[in-house]
Amino acid sequence: MQRFEDLAQQFATHFNNRHFPEQPATLYDAGEYFLGIGGKRIRPVLCLMGNELFAEIVPDAFQVATAIELFHNFTLIHDDIMDNAPLRRNQPTVHEKYGSSTALLAGDVMLVVAYDYLLKIKPEYIRKITNLFSRTAREVCEGQQLDMDFEKREQVGMDEYIHMIELKTSVLVAASLRMGGLLGGAGERNLHHLYEFGRNLGIAFQVQDDYLDCYGDPAKFGKQVGGDIVANKKTFLLIKALESADKERLASLKALLAGNAADKVQQVLGIFHDLKVDQWAFNLKEHYLNEAYRHLDEIAVVAVRKEPLQKLAQFLVQREY
Amino acid sequence: MQRFEDLAQQFATHFNNRHFPEQPATLYDAGEYFLGIGGKRIRPVLCLMGNELFAEIVPDAFQVATAIELFHNFTLIHDDIMDNAPLRRNQPTVHEKYGSSTALLAGDVMLVVAYDYLLKIKPEYIRKITNLFSRTAREVCEGQQLDMDFEKREQVGMDEYIHMIELKTSVLVAASLRMGGLLGGAGERNLHHLYEFGRNLGIAFQVQDDYLDCYGDPAKFGKQVGGDIVANKKTFLLIKALESADKERLASLKALLAGNAADKVQQVLGIFHDLKVDQWAFNLKEHYLNEAYRHLDEIAVVAVRKEPLQKLAQFLVQREY
Repeated sequence: MQRFEDLAQQFATHFNNRHFPEQPATLYDAGEYFLGIGGKRIRPVLCLMGNELFAEIVPDAFQVATAIELFHNFTLIHDDIMDNAPLRRNQPTVHEKYGSSTALLAGDVMLVVAYDYLLKIKPEYIRKITNLFSRTAREVCEGQQLDMDFEKREQVGMDEYIHMIELKTSVLVAASLRMGGLLGGAGERNLHHLYEFGRNLGIAFQVQDDYLDCYGDPAKFGKQVGGDIVANKKTFLLIKALESADKERLASLKALLAGNAADKVQQVLGIFHDLKVDQWAFNLKEHYLNEAYRHLDEIAVVAVRKEPLQKLAQFLVQREY
Repeated sequence: MQRFEDLAQQFATHFNNRHFPEQPATLYDAGEYFLGIGGKRIRPVLCLMGNELFAEIVPDAFQVATAIELFHNFTLIHDDIMDNAPLRRNQPTVHEKYGSSTALLAGDVMLVVAYDYLLKIKPEYIRKITNLFSRTAREVCEGQQLDMDFEKREQVGMDEYIHMIELKTSVLVAASLRMGGLLGGAGERNLHHLYEFGRNLGIAFQVQDDYLDCYGDPAKFGKQVGGDIVANKKTFLLIKALESADKERLASLKALLAGNAADKVQQVLGIFHDLKVDQWAFNLKEHYLNEAYRHLDEIAVVAVRKEPLQKLAQFLVQREY
């Protein structure tokens, strides 16, 4: 059983090569550039870990992991266009560097190449793996659309928001694990629990991400505290606050959102504190993390095989950066 | 052997249904809208015809034809974003009607759904068909990138331009036929000639498209004559004129391109006429059409089976609308 770091190293050896032809360079340099600026490669390694939970890692797992990472990068390139984001991983985004038309096409062709890797695996696995991959891809697109829709709406229900996060973030984490498990020969019951482990872990991760934006140590977190508040971004905390505020605090909160007060972050955090939204978010994260662990427990393999996934979950969700 | 019109009718019955879930409507309505505004469905019908050239049409041919048409529409949605085009088929483009972020996502998810249809065919065909589909998809993206690159360049060689047209237009026509032939059980030699028939036909079609922009009957053509000239679009005719003009005419042509003279179209057409570019383009179209027919002749099936493809080629390339 290998640790995340070791598998990430193995994946990097496999992945850090060209994925596109040389020509036309005006198209393919853009994709290679983006893949070259890094990323933690969590999803592809989850695929390898899902495989190793049940059996020695098969070569096909690296093909599928590659497809997953290319798909993830495709979504990032297109999301950055939609969000008009200038930076990703502290580097210029593809559309900033190559123009939005090339970024659009570089994303398109990256998705096509992702499917190419899926087609390389053993024929008997292609349909099952690719069907899950495609379903997940559709869900991620739906999640991105809902995210954009919600940003335009004044009120978003907690259930709707959780559903959006599931689609936009969790299903790819869950599917990466499940694809690995499939290649490792796991049965349906184990695959179900593995998927649910990933789905809940993904939500816990996003709750924490929203939490850390408000309460993270800026030195460790690497971002300005309250960035989401400044941008009026819908987060678990804001939605909960809007749902649970009394009339007076609701009015204050809405006034703060509508304006650009110098102490906006401090004031919103004050309301969050009054409403105990911070404690609620912490508990919510614990709830989803516990759900994730509950499903991991249900997987019928010896406990020692689960250790790397347990440690990774802890690392991902207890992180303070 | 069925005519194009009959197969188009059959394909429409199969295709004119929902291809996406109902929700989120903000995403999927955009895709359904675009599929609903029509199109001649030439490529999917070519897939059916490629099948019927060799054998009775198999149900899988409709799945592959559907994937091809979805792929084609995905490229149109994204191309329209890149070209900032307000209209397509005389209707508002997706980004005009739903915004460019939704158009981007609606295209993405349409590509994913195209792959879903490919995954539905008999397992023994999936890899072969999907590999050809993906290679073609990559080539179409490359063609679009080259097209954008060329628009920014002052000089483009004829060979480069033909290569771009091949990628952007011809390979999908050729691959549609070949995928149908594959499903019809054709051997490699016949598949090769079928692909080459399509590839040459695609180029002939584009030469004609460029020709008609200058010399088409506007009443039949449905477009303003000289639209490409007004827009300084690189076409077979302009590239040939730039290549073959003497020093004096080259200077006049460049001056016309740099300006916006009221009689720009007439003057450029005059230069084309002096350089016999019109006759050259007509001959070039004939050359590629003859090449296409030559490859069709080489396909080892009885002549009567080829008649629908012959008629379609004639219709597509002799059209005056």
